[in-house]
Amino acid sequence: MTNPTSGRWAGFTWQALVARVRSLLLGAPLATSVQLEHRLPIIFALPVFASDALSSVSYATEELLLVLAEYGITDLVLYISFAIVALLIIVGISFRQAIHLYPAGGGSYSVVRDHLGRIPGSVAASALTIDYILTVAVSVSAGVAALTSTFPYLREHPGPVWLAILLIILITLVNLRGTRESGWTFALPAYSFVTMIGILIITSVYRYIAAGGNVAPAPVPPNVITAEPGGVFGFLAAFVIMHAFANGCAAMTGVEAVADGVTAFKPPEATNAARTLMILIGTLIFLFLGVGFATYIYHARPSETVTLVTQLAAHVFGTDIQANYSAILYYLTTFATLAVLMVAANTAFAGFPRLAAIVARDGYMPKALASLGDRLVFTRGILALTVVSIILVWALNANVTRLIGLYAVGVFLTFTLTQTAVVRRILDQRGPGWQRRLIIGGIGALATGIVTIVIAITKFADGAFIVLILIPVLVLIAMLIRRHYEWFDRTMIVHDYDYNPLADQPEPLTVLVLISSDIHRGILEGLECGRALTAHHPDSVLRAVHVELDPEKSARLKAKWEVFVEPYLGDKIKLDIVPSPYRWLIEPVLDYIDWTDLERTGDRVIVVLPEFETGNVITHFLHNFTARRLRTALLNRPHITVVSSRFFMRPMAWRLGRGGLVY
Amino acid sequence: MTNPTSGRWAGFTWQALVARVRSLLLGAPLATSVQLEHRLPIIFALPVFASDALSSVSYATEELLLVLAEYGITDLVLYISFAIVALLIIVGISFRQAIHLYPAGGGSYSVVRDHLGRIPGSVAASALTIDYILTVAVSVSAGVAALTSTFPYLREHPGPVWLAILLIILITLVNLRGTRESGWTFALPAYSFVTMIGILIITSVYRYIAAGGNVAPAPVPPNVITAEPGGVFGFLAAFVIMHAFANGCAAMTGVEAVADGVTAFKPPEATNAARTLMILIGTLIFLFLGVGFATYIYHARPSETVTLVTQLAAHVFGTDIQANYSAILYYLTTFATLAVLMVAANTAFAGFPRLAAIVARDGYMPKALASLGDRLVFTRGILALTVVSIILVWALNANVTRLIGLYAVGVFLTFTLTQTAVVRRILDQRGPGWQRRLIIGGIGALATGIVTIVIAITKFADGAFIVLILIPVLVLIAMLIRRHYEWFDRTMIVHDYDYNPLADQPEPLTVLVLISSDIHRGILEGLECGRALTAHHPDSVLRAVHVELDPEKSARLKAKWEVFVEPYLGDKIKLDIVPSPYRWLIEPVLDYIDWTDLERTGDRVIVVLPEFETGNVITHFLHNFTARRLRTALLNRPHITVVSSRFFMRPMAWRLGRGGLVY
Repeated sequence: MTNPTSGRWAGFTWQALVARVRSLLLGAPLATSVQLEHRLPIIFALPVFASDALSSVSYATEELLLVLAEYGITDLVLYISFAIVALLIIVGISFRQAIHLYPAGGGSYSVVRDHLGRIPGSVAASALTIDYILTVAVSVSAGVAALTSTFPYLREHPGPVWLAILLIILITLVNLRGTRESGWTFALPAYSFVTMIGILIITSVYRYIAAGGNVAPAPVPPNVITAEPGGVFGFLAAFVIMHAFANGCAAMTGVEAVADGVTAFKPPEATNAARTLMILIGTLIFLFLGVGFATYIYHARPSETVTLVTQLAAHVFGTDIQANYSAILYYLTTFATLAVLMVAANTAFAGFPRLAAIVARDGYMPKALASLGDRLVFTRGILALTVVSIILVWALNANVTRLIGLYAVGVFLTFTLTQTAVVRRILDQRGPGWQRRLIIGGIGALATGIVTIVIAITKFADGAFIVLILIPVLVLIAMLIRRHYEWFDRTMIVHDYDYNPLADQPEPLTVLVLISSDIHRGILEGLECGRALTAHHPDSVLRAVHVELDPEKSARLKAKWEVFVEPYLGDKIKLDIVPSPYRWLIEPVLDYIDWTDLERTGDRVIVVLPEFETGNVITHFLHNFTARRLRTALLNRPHITVVSSRFFMRPMAWRLGRGGLVY
Repeated sequence: MTNPTSGRWAGFTWQALVARVRSLLLGAPLATSVQLEHRLPIIFALPVFASDALSSVSYATEELLLVLAEYGITDLVLYISFAIVALLIIVGISFRQAIHLYPAGGGSYSVVRDHLGRIPGSVAASALTIDYILTVAVSVSAGVAALTSTFPYLREHPGPVWLAILLIILITLVNLRGTRESGWTFALPAYSFVTMIGILIITSVYRYIAAGGNVAPAPVPPNVITAEPGGVFGFLAAFVIMHAFANGCAAMTGVEAVADGVTAFKPPEATNAARTLMILIGTLIFLFLGVGFATYIYHARPSETVTLVTQLAAHVFGTDIQANYSAILYYLTTFATLAVLMVAANTAFAGFPRLAAIVARDGYMPKALASLGDRLVFTRGILALTVVSIILVWALNANVTRLIGLYAVGVFLTFTLTQTAVVRRILDQRGPGWQRRLIIGGIGALATGIVTIVIAITKFADGAFIVLILIPVLVLIAMLIRRHYEWFDRTMIVHDYDYNPLADQPEPLTVLVLISSDIHRGILEGLECGRALTAHHPDSVLRAVHVELDPEKSARLKAKWEVFVEPYLGDKIKLDIVPSPYRWLIEPVLDYIDWTDLERTGDRVIVVLPEFETGNVITHFLHNFTARRLRTALLNRPHITVVSSRFFMRPMAWRLGRGGLVY
């Protein structure tokens, strides 16, 4: 037996190069049995699944402030932050309950599908898909914004869009390497971010207390967005406040990732996941309220070119390292923010392929998304996410505010559906303590439902309408995909009462060998193959057909046929020469087959295509691709079986599609 | 028998759409027997083969003048024009003789190859190829220059480069329709151009005589290129005059096209071609001298934005139609110039594919270029020319002066080689009147040889050096291509003393059926196929192999195998399940085959790939492409014959690669 790892090298091939680069970038493949070892302890699970929510601290307050700044009522920032924290607590408690009710994981989609049905399930899956894509786009764009705030020349070259695309590709590569590497790579940034923002908040609070509430306001940033304070009342005021609240809700996107990823935790999965969720909610409240408080006391204002967190860090730590060593903290804050936002984008890369795999297994997404890649990650789902989010970042110019317009509707729609499903389940099962659970779930469903409506209305014109159109379209596509798979199963899967072709006696064969304009070795091999297929049944028929493109060449062919074929196969086979007035090659063959087919109705027609392979990529192109074109044309006809008999001119130099290794 | 033209429609396919668009743009296909009817009478042959030379009148004088203008010696234009006419007469007479000596046509390449050998032949072919490309680029760019001279706003939008690319694509489409259409489409512009320039010349001569040699000079054009008159002497003066002469020689490119295209003339081919050549030379002398004369008497000067011919026409005819109806002639001159330059580009489209076909038949270019397309034209050669000339126009910004730098070296090199070959032949054969012929050929070879050296030296820095580097590179590639075809013939073509596989008795077969993760109808068909192939020889072996990606699915598969396959094939076949720890699909199959191969050394291993076809382009993508990937991998291994057994889920909706018709 040939040892598949002995690695006989037979020359350069593209396949081999691709495989080498791939293995360098992505690491060696992992066996299925390694999968369980890749489960995550809390210390790694937190950065992987909770960073989306944590990192949103870097932009949520700013997006909230932007709405208020247009009407000069930025001082409301603290009160709206309190409202969001209240909602966060409700959602956190609801999801904690959901984790315990569904310890097998699967998250929102499975819960909604099981208790509310196919269509709500698909709605949840579509909404989550959209928000996974937006998580990548928003996080990467916010990271780029943090970077260009601190280093403005990066805004000119390479520019935010290219930076964002570069970062998305980087995250993709890290993810294709597999989950454990993700854990290590991303734990440090997440904890650094929490530390840096923590120092920022504590310093601010300390100074506020030390100065008796009389701290110096932050300097007005360049390109500030501002308005005269005061003039908004009545309905407009309510709308503006609601709109600011809706924008701030971006802080909560991502808390569902823990519940969706329960199966990735170390056992006991549910307990660990619930604990992670509670740590997340606590930390998030601290950071979000802290940034809101700092914004409030320093009267920070939003700017088009400098992010809010960068402004606060510059004000609190200083920016000139020579003047003040604490300015190092300013730069560290920027790097930690960029890093945690990369981890946030990674949340989607960890969550979306899992969601896609579950949905694909149910038949609502292409089956290809359900299969494991080489590295225990869902390669195809990751690549799909990469492509779509790059397009989105490119289309919206890596602008966080424009992306935020599309964000959060989907997540809150899913929250509402999940909590409704939980309520439905509690009502159906009525286990011990169901009343308390019903109240938790009911409050969760009601609160998130109202917020969904608020977001949909206030952010409608900002882009939420696109999401509201897209969700039904995705649901429809999901239903059509499912319908196709159902049709496939009905048509293809065999049952006891079906006709089984194996029940009949084997039939004689009709084998057709196609002959090119010269009798070369490949043709002889093809004829030998045709003879082998028909040799042992008296009723089997062997035919040879040649399409005449040049009468001169055909005459020469006939002469050679008499010398090289007649003596051995003369009694079995006759060379049919088919005219081709338009110098077509494929059409006369098909016509000839139609005729052959009719003569022996019901037979399988086997067509032998003698091919040859020069064993060299460049010289390969010096020959016509008639064999390949013929194969494609014949494969597209029913009742034809195509036999590719390939002659290798350099048999030692064959290329091998064996994970790219070349023997 | 199924009627191939009955056209059963089975739904939309891309193939059908492409075929319909193609047939709309290019016309219906033509049979080989129509080829002779497509031969051209002189009245159509003249525009097709002679327009390159004729149209060069629109830029040759200007390019000559540009060199003189830099030293303020523009008045020399008339004397240099006389020198070029003298050379033109010599070349014309030499080529007339060549046509009569080689009535079978083939032109420069065949003549040089036959009498001077392989390498000079390849040099001629390479030089001609380069100049065909330049003919397209220069002619189209000059046409665009004429258009933007008269309508300056076209220079802004869409700009010269886009205009030029658009025109090249237009000419390509006309050419893909076939030769006769080319004749009709291009006859009118060529004759119009001769008429308009003729009127321009005759009017100028008449006014000059009427005014007693005292005509008003043309106004100085915008963006004029000028210098103080007078200051150039000695060696520099000689170089400048030679350089101007070399630039003016662009007027002579294209006279070889008649000799290369003799076979396209109506019989008697040689006589008609020779007559056409003489008409061409006469007309060309009249036009070229006339434009030189008009330039001289009106003291016209070159400009960056207005062509010389446009200036002359504007001066002679006026530009304001309201003021003077003769201004209509000004616009007609522009349109006729544009049109004839398109015909000139077409010269290359008529000539290059013919050259490529002849060279390809000799094995110095890819064989694909030698085969006739659907429409009796050499489709592939035309497309190659289109792509390369578009790249050239784009790279040199559609600037005539920059393109002219590369032009004419190749043509004069070929002229020299051709005349040398003619001299060689005359010396070898010494037929009646060989002395007179030798003198004609000798003068031709000597004159063109000297001019080649003059062009190569004076235009070296303008771009001729690129051509001088490119020619040896192309010759080397041609030699390597030829070497490959020779190796192919040695390796593949069978001789009496070869081993003939048909001489042995047919061997028993080893057939392997690949089983996917479920027993569906496609699998049963594949098994049936495998059984049919092995049924009638007692030593043939049938095997089934399944790659285990998911142990759960494999267990289910085994259970189904026992129900649906065991009862019928139990004695013949056993299901081998191959583990795949890395969830690879292709590699375990290859390993399994290596093992099978070893067990029965020397056997042909036949692998049956059961595939299915959903019959719908979109749903096709909802399934994994494992069959296709497996087929590619297996086809790249020697000793494996691949059998594609395809199950059609919608047998009535099969798509057909039949010239795009859908049944």
